[in-house]
Amino acid sequence: MGEVKRALVTGGCGFLGSHVCRRLLQDGYRVVALDNLYTGSKRNVADLFANPGFAFSEMNVIEPLVDLGSFDEIYNLACPASPPHYQARPLFTTKTSVLGALNVIELAAKCGAKVLHTSTSEVYGDPLVHPQVEKYWGNVNTIGIRSCYDEGKRCAETLYADAIREMDLDVRMVRIFNTYGPAMDPQDGRVISNFAMQALRNEDITIFGDGSQTRSFQYVDDLVEAFRRYMALPKERIRAFFAEKGLGAPVLNTGNPGEYTIRQLAEETLRQLPESKSQIVTRPLPADDPKRRKPDITLAKELLGWEPRVPLAEGLAKTIAYFRTRA
Amino acid sequence: MGEVKRALVTGGCGFLGSHVCRRLLQDGYRVVALDNLYTGSKRNVADLFANPGFAFSEMNVIEPLVDLGSFDEIYNLACPASPPHYQARPLFTTKTSVLGALNVIELAAKCGAKVLHTSTSEVYGDPLVHPQVEKYWGNVNTIGIRSCYDEGKRCAETLYADAIREMDLDVRMVRIFNTYGPAMDPQDGRVISNFAMQALRNEDITIFGDGSQTRSFQYVDDLVEAFRRYMALPKERIRAFFAEKGLGAPVLNTGNPGEYTIRQLAEETLRQLPESKSQIVTRPLPADDPKRRKPDITLAKELLGWEPRVPLAEGLAKTIAYFRTRA
Repeated sequence: MGEVKRALVTGGCGFLGSHVCRRLLQDGYRVVALDNLYTGSKRNVADLFANPGFAFSEMNVIEPLVDLGSFDEIYNLACPASPPHYQARPLFTTKTSVLGALNVIELAAKCGAKVLHTSTSEVYGDPLVHPQVEKYWGNVNTIGIRSCYDEGKRCAETLYADAIREMDLDVRMVRIFNTYGPAMDPQDGRVISNFAMQALRNEDITIFGDGSQTRSFQYVDDLVEAFRRYMALPKERIRAFFAEKGLGAPVLNTGNPGEYTIRQLAEETLRQLPESKSQIVTRPLPADDPKRRKPDITLAKELLGWEPRVPLAEGLAKTIAYFRTRA
Repeated sequence: MGEVKRALVTGGCGFLGSHVCRRLLQDGYRVVALDNLYTGSKRNVADLFANPGFAFSEMNVIEPLVDLGSFDEIYNLACPASPPHYQARPLFTTKTSVLGALNVIELAAKCGAKVLHTSTSEVYGDPLVHPQVEKYWGNVNTIGIRSCYDEGKRCAETLYADAIREMDLDVRMVRIFNTYGPAMDPQDGRVISNFAMQALRNEDITIFGDGSQTRSFQYVDDLVEAFRRYMALPKERIRAFFAEKGLGAPVLNTGNPGEYTIRQLAEETLRQLPESKSQIVTRPLPADDPKRRKPDITLAKELLGWEPRVPLAEGLAKTIAYFRTRA
């Protein structure tokens, strides 16, 4: 039997991070969750504190991490990710992405850890290519109100790509598309949380525009499964695969390519909450409404033998059960 | 008579920085040149050391600047800018742009300085729009070997745009296109330096491809004139102008829209050096040869009443005279 592996999860008390911590503990890891609790919450990992393999460190990823100890794997998930959160503190958001990447790189180089870095579909911006493939360079404004997140995440990808070339670091990057599940912040302003909370509170469910615009939704368990398969592959396999695909660094789309209209999502939410008195109402589409974004997951299928398995109705049921505890 | 103004020029011993220092001294400023001498050189400002208004600080812009003193104006020019330089140390290059921006923002906030930040036409990447206007979002690879410069500069723009919105900082950004003149590094790998040094050494002048590809060349004095006019305008005028143009922050193209073929440049170089024994030879075009890039300077004309005045033959003569001292 091998030695117990140690993992660091930055943003470990956030929506995604808490699921990663839980999965790693199930897989037999010792886990340190690092979080500054700006958008994360200890509530998300309350069930893990009793586990002797779990430790929480209240710390900011923009501070040096190099004295945190030695890890086999680092999962870098620290960054405010919903527009109301990241736009409230834009300079801090960009710092979190960029200084966070530099600090993770420094720590990983010191202890020889492999790194999973979570990038985002936002690096594609307002894409001119549909669905988005990893080779697409994106269409991103450098000076707008979303730029703090988008450009910070783009710059972090650059730093990791150069850390691979310059320092031979073992890094794997994912570009995460819309993801939902328990531990989402009810106030994050996203459509899944909005609709569920409105339905639970018997408030009107507000659709912006006519509701025919489509979105893709990935259930969090599918995403975490992709992380684990990606990290399990040998470094050489990763390098060879992305080189063969003509990509300068390992960047992998993970998302659910299934498309639903916003109206379908509202109707499914109400179907699952038959006791709700909410009505669907429509409002004018705001000017900055993000256009359609949909992942091409050909590379993830080929490299990881992975594709999303959780249907929307099933994932939504689990998510609504969670929101019920928060309403 | 007003008090003497103080200016900080980061990258003050570099090609552009040395010209900015000289001009500011001529305009009556006290000037601190900050440089880590990675690509800059004290040779570039050797004539300024005798001036009591000039001081040099050997320091890296990625270190905190906040204790440097108080300034009225900060010109942030620190960053390796030619591919052989920035690709030799990619992580350091990105840090210089991003941490440099954060440090300049911190210093400017403390002392109330106005900031001129030098961005670059590289934020447009391999542009799909010709000529490039400031509203164009660019076409940039996040994970390639040029990304350390391009994405670092893009991220710096984002930080300054948010520093304006979040902290009400007085920042003016320029996106600088191809610029040349005395104090250029003879080894910087750019076509002007390459041709001049080859002609001065009686070596073959190498054209890649058939030489019909075009480039635009801005003489450094024209650029520095644009800086000074931009900094002289009141903050309110800057804000109103860019808001009216639908731009989220003050980003202004500065470059010379005149186009020359690479063959014309080679021929003009030889015309100015009739004693040279060099011959023009052609070589295959490398795969990563940058495509055509040409500034649209409509906004700079309107805001600054500025356009480039120095013809290529005149600027090239001054530049060759400089390279003669370095051959």
